[in-house]
Amino acid sequence: MQTVRVALGERAYPVHIGAGLLGRADLVLPQLARKQIAVVTDTNVAPLYLERFTGPLRDAGVDVVSVVLPEGEAHKRWDSVERVLDTLLERRCGRDTTLAALGGGVVGDLTGFAASVYQRGVPYIQVPTTLLAQVDSSVGGKTAINHPRGKNMIGAFHQPALVLADMDTLASLPMRELRGGLAEVIKHGFIRDADFVGWLEAYVDDLLARDRDALAHAVARSVEIKSAIVARDEREQGERALLNFGHTFGHALETGLGYGEWLHGEAVAAGMAMAAELSRRLGILSGADCERVRALLARAGLPVDAPALPAQRLLELMSVDKKAKDGRLRFILLERIGAAVLRADVPQAAIEETLAAAVPQRTLST
Amino acid sequence: MQTVRVALGERAYPVHIGAGLLGRADLVLPQLARKQIAVVTDTNVAPLYLERFTGPLRDAGVDVVSVVLPEGEAHKRWDSVERVLDTLLERRCGRDTTLAALGGGVVGDLTGFAASVYQRGVPYIQVPTTLLAQVDSSVGGKTAINHPRGKNMIGAFHQPALVLADMDTLASLPMRELRGGLAEVIKHGFIRDADFVGWLEAYVDDLLARDRDALAHAVARSVEIKSAIVARDEREQGERALLNFGHTFGHALETGLGYGEWLHGEAVAAGMAMAAELSRRLGILSGADCERVRALLARAGLPVDAPALPAQRLLELMSVDKKAKDGRLRFILLERIGAAVLRADVPQAAIEETLAAAVPQRTLST
Repeated sequence: MQTVRVALGERAYPVHIGAGLLGRADLVLPQLARKQIAVVTDTNVAPLYLERFTGPLRDAGVDVVSVVLPEGEAHKRWDSVERVLDTLLERRCGRDTTLAALGGGVVGDLTGFAASVYQRGVPYIQVPTTLLAQVDSSVGGKTAINHPRGKNMIGAFHQPALVLADMDTLASLPMRELRGGLAEVIKHGFIRDADFVGWLEAYVDDLLARDRDALAHAVARSVEIKSAIVARDEREQGERALLNFGHTFGHALETGLGYGEWLHGEAVAAGMAMAAELSRRLGILSGADCERVRALLARAGLPVDAPALPAQRLLELMSVDKKAKDGRLRFILLERIGAAVLRADVPQAAIEETLAAAVPQRTLST
Repeated sequence: MQTVRVALGERAYPVHIGAGLLGRADLVLPQLARKQIAVVTDTNVAPLYLERFTGPLRDAGVDVVSVVLPEGEAHKRWDSVERVLDTLLERRCGRDTTLAALGGGVVGDLTGFAASVYQRGVPYIQVPTTLLAQVDSSVGGKTAINHPRGKNMIGAFHQPALVLADMDTLASLPMRELRGGLAEVIKHGFIRDADFVGWLEAYVDDLLARDRDALAHAVARSVEIKSAIVARDEREQGERALLNFGHTFGHALETGLGYGEWLHGEAVAAGMAMAAELSRRLGILSGADCERVRALLARAGLPVDAPALPAQRLLELMSVDKKAKDGRLRFILLERIGAAVLRADVPQAAIEETLAAAVPQRTLST
């Protein structure tokens, strides 16, 4: 087991990474202010892992409350939060009850948000069971639900007390979701660590073959990169925005297609390819590096072109994104592999050209 | 104009108290990161004060978005938050848009909560138009909405950037609401300041006659007492709990009667009389001081006995209150006028006797 510590002063917490962690009640027990835990999971994950996680806790005398939500991004909405809150109140959970998110990013974001608003905030732990959640949403304390007008528009900053990233849960992950998680792993390399990108280029096939050691290294390095950035900028005033590389385009693609059509990681992958292309058009990234971005994503089996959506619609969606500031679009661009930069001065023409180049022609002619 | 500064480090903010403040755009403008403000108010307050507040801002070039919610505690729920969020998204409000709560405690709590969750948190200002909101809910950063199973069960800590308490708005306040606000004013004296209780005993008739200077003094002293406590304990780990004097009983009364039957201040008044009686029964408050508590509340025209509700039902409601910790009820009791103390070791029998003494006999026999 490796442990990465997220350094956030009095809100610091450990991320444990390894095999067999789901059953490690000994890691969870010291976190509980009271011997009660409310586990939120979904219909996909519950049959696989709920008992493995809660059994040892129950054996240790913990009162386990569980809420099984319907699976999928479409349920990352207030109704589901309300179901969690209803159960907490029904079971007389107090301010000293700990919540646990057992599942992917949807469960994690939603449970974290429920924990942040229940009685004005209760502690929670993250037990991410997808690669995406392990490397991304379980670190950093961003919690949220979706609004019909935009993804993650309702939320809070609320740090977990503990994260357990169990490599065993990746064995059951559908291949498409594994690739989606790799998109965020690769992103961490692109924005901050050229050596890690080199390692990924060498080991991408091992990762896709689910080599456990390779996966553990990829998760640990991702968590280190992300947590170092978050530690310096918890509330996303500056540097943390770099983690949004690929997300300005990516969120627009996700929303434009309708939630759930593309995986988050797939949208981010296409978004990164577009952001690299935009960087190249602006003359700040070399053509060779832009090609390296596309090549690694393609080797991971991720999309590097936008789906068939009108460019005008994507532009509109980007302008309501919460990363827009004072009406101006902000982009994370690459200066080279391993070095990202925030730019709010991108000319509209360059954005439109990038969209035109990325979106298949048949759409533009409709 | 008097200004009380709430000392909360980087979240410190001023509370301005005086006449004619609604029209003082000059106090608001420096707070706006972007010249856009979203004003949330209700159907009662909008016709009286919305234009008085927004006109000068509009004249100063500020883009004013307004949301008028239906009036009343029954609307302090998620639906209303959603209406606010829908409007913010529709009008393309960003992370740098400031929200303003123009109204009583319901509008203030709800708007503060909406501000805390919109895009993971945007700034907001409080413009409380009731005495209760001026002395209580607008100071301290507690925001919340209700859940059918309990009041204020969903919320967040989110400090405002500024509070404008305009004495002019108290002229239009129904008498019953003025009395309700006085309950919280009196509470601040009971828990912390015997001299202020003496002043209130001398000036309660002036306050009821809406003498503007008396009101301004009562608001300022209340805000000072409350903000000093909040500054020392922002997240309610300890001392801040003293502000809940009268609230363990009071919330149960409010919930038991159904929201809106009694005003919050009325329930808190009866709750304070009951907490004083419990303190007397436990031998920590003198009979004379207990009588002084009842007498001042009665002179303010506030209830000092519980409504006709089964004692068993009140006990149940108290046990789901979020002030219960690890299953134990916690009470704020008085040691003397001006000195409150938190106790988690109150014998069940004393609680039951207090309820039996406070609730009219006809109920107990049903």
